[in-house]
Amino acid sequence: MLQNIRVVLVNTSHPGNIGGAARAMKNMGLSRLVLVEPRQFPSEEAVARASGAADILDAAEVVSCLEDALVGCSLVFGTSARERRIPWPLIDPRECGVAVVDKAAAGGEVALVFGREHAGLTNEELQRCHFHVHIPSDPAFSSLNLAAAVQVLTYEARMAALALENAPLVAPRQDVVADEGEQPVTADEMESFYGHLEKSLVEIGFLDPVNPRHLMSRLRRLYGRSAVTKLEMNILRGVLTETLKAARGEHHKRGKTDV
Amino acid sequence: MLQNIRVVLVNTSHPGNIGGAARAMKNMGLSRLVLVEPRQFPSEEAVARASGAADILDAAEVVSCLEDALVGCSLVFGTSARERRIPWPLIDPRECGVAVVDKAAAGGEVALVFGREHAGLTNEELQRCHFHVHIPSDPAFSSLNLAAAVQVLTYEARMAALALENAPLVAPRQDVVADEGEQPVTADEMESFYGHLEKSLVEIGFLDPVNPRHLMSRLRRLYGRSAVTKLEMNILRGVLTETLKAARGEHHKRGKTDV
Repeated sequence: MLQNIRVVLVNTSHPGNIGGAARAMKNMGLSRLVLVEPRQFPSEEAVARASGAADILDAAEVVSCLEDALVGCSLVFGTSARERRIPWPLIDPRECGVAVVDKAAAGGEVALVFGREHAGLTNEELQRCHFHVHIPSDPAFSSLNLAAAVQVLTYEARMAALALENAPLVAPRQDVVADEGEQPVTADEMESFYGHLEKSLVEIGFLDPVNPRHLMSRLRRLYGRSAVTKLEMNILRGVLTETLKAARGEHHKRGKTDV
Repeated sequence: MLQNIRVVLVNTSHPGNIGGAARAMKNMGLSRLVLVEPRQFPSEEAVARASGAADILDAAEVVSCLEDALVGCSLVFGTSARERRIPWPLIDPRECGVAVVDKAAAGGEVALVFGREHAGLTNEELQRCHFHVHIPSDPAFSSLNLAAAVQVLTYEARMAALALENAPLVAPRQDVVADEGEQPVTADEMESFYGHLEKSLVEIGFLDPVNPRHLMSRLRRLYGRSAVTKLEMNILRGVLTETLKAARGEHHKRGKTDV
C-alpha cells in the first residue's frame, strides 16, 4: 500500500536534497515524488545524491502549486515547527506513520508535505493539511535537513506498514469500503467546498472580504479534521446552494430536501 | 542521558556524510562523534553539510581502530544488512533506541557504530558489537545513505529518551489549553446548535419538516465527531444567525464579520 503515499516537496532550494529525498523514499519502498516549483530540477546534483534512485527522479511530477500536488488525496500531513498561532492537530512521526498507513491500506491517497529548507511551509500551506507533524528535535537546534526529515517520516510509514502486514489486528471493513458515500472526499473536493463556503459567507454578509480575519482558516481547521465523507459533502454543498438562493431572494421552494 | 551515547563512523569515504551525521546528531540531542580512520577530515564539505552543527565536528575524536573508539563502552550496537553468516542478535531501530536509552539512563556508555558507505562493517567489526541493528529497508534497494542511517537510529534513541522521561513527545500546548475559546463545547451547547441549524435549514428551504429524511442525523454525526470548540461554535452560530437574516431579506449589513 506504500504506493498510495506521495511525498510532496515545496519550493526546494537545493537539488541535492531532492536527490536525498528520492533515495530515502526508495529505501523505504515509496515511489511517488511531487515537486512544487523546485528552484532547480532536473539536476545532476539530485541524480548524484539519489544514488540508485534516479528512477524516482525521472518519474517525479513537477507542479506549480500545492493544490495541484494534492489532487486526489484524502489525507494530507504537513511537517511543522512546534509553534503556530492557530492551533492545529499536531502529531509525532510515529502517529503519522500509523495514520498514513491506515488510510493507504484502506485505498486512500495520502500526501506527506515538506516545506522550504529554511522557511518551512507557509501558514496558508499548513492550512491545506489535515495534520501537522513535528519531528521531536532538540529545541536548541531543531531544523532537520530536508532529506533527513523525509527519511524519518518514510521510515515511520514503513515501520507501520510492516506492523500491519505482520499482524492485521482488525480485518478490513469490506462493508464500509464498498459504500461510496462513506468514502472520504479528496483534498481538491475540500478546496472546492471552501471556495463555495467563502462565497456564501460573503453573500450573507458574515464574511467581510476586506477584513476576513481568521474566519476561513478556523473553518478549514474545523472541517479539515472531520474527515468529511462524500455523502456529507453532498449535504454541505446542498446547504450552501440553498443559502445562496435564499440570500438572493430565490427561496420560494421552501420544504425541498432532495440532495 | 543522551550524552552517554556516542556515534562511531568507521572509514567514512565522503566527508559530506560526516557533516550530515553531525547535523542529525545535534538535531536529536546527541553530541559525541568518534571517527575511525576517516578518508578526509577535517573537511569544508563536512562543515557545509553540518549546517549549524560544526561544534560537533570540532569536538569529534579521530582514532585509528574500532577498539579505540569503543573504550569505556558497556554496550555496542552495529548497523548491519540483514543477512550474515554468523548469526547474531538482530534488532530493529526501535528496539535499539529502547535498549540504548535503558543503558544510558543507568549511567552506561553506549556506542552506535556505522560502517563504510558501500561495504558496511566487516565481520570482525560486527563481532565487536553486542547487537546488530537492521533498518528495515526495501530488500530491492536496501542501502541507506550513511547520514540517513544515523538520523534513523538517533531519532529512535531520542524517541525512547522522551518516552522514558515520560515527557509527552509533543509538549502540551499551554497557550491553547489556557485559551477558553479552544475548550470543547458542552453537549447542551451542541443541542442548542442543532436546534438553530435545523430551524435555519427549514427557513432556507433545504429541510422539509414533513419529510426530513436522515438529514439532521447525518449532520449530527459530522459535527458530533469534530469536537467543536467554543470559538468554532461562535462562528457556526454567527453563520446561522446571518443565514436567517439573509433568508428573511434582512441582510443589508453585508460585510459584517464581528462574531
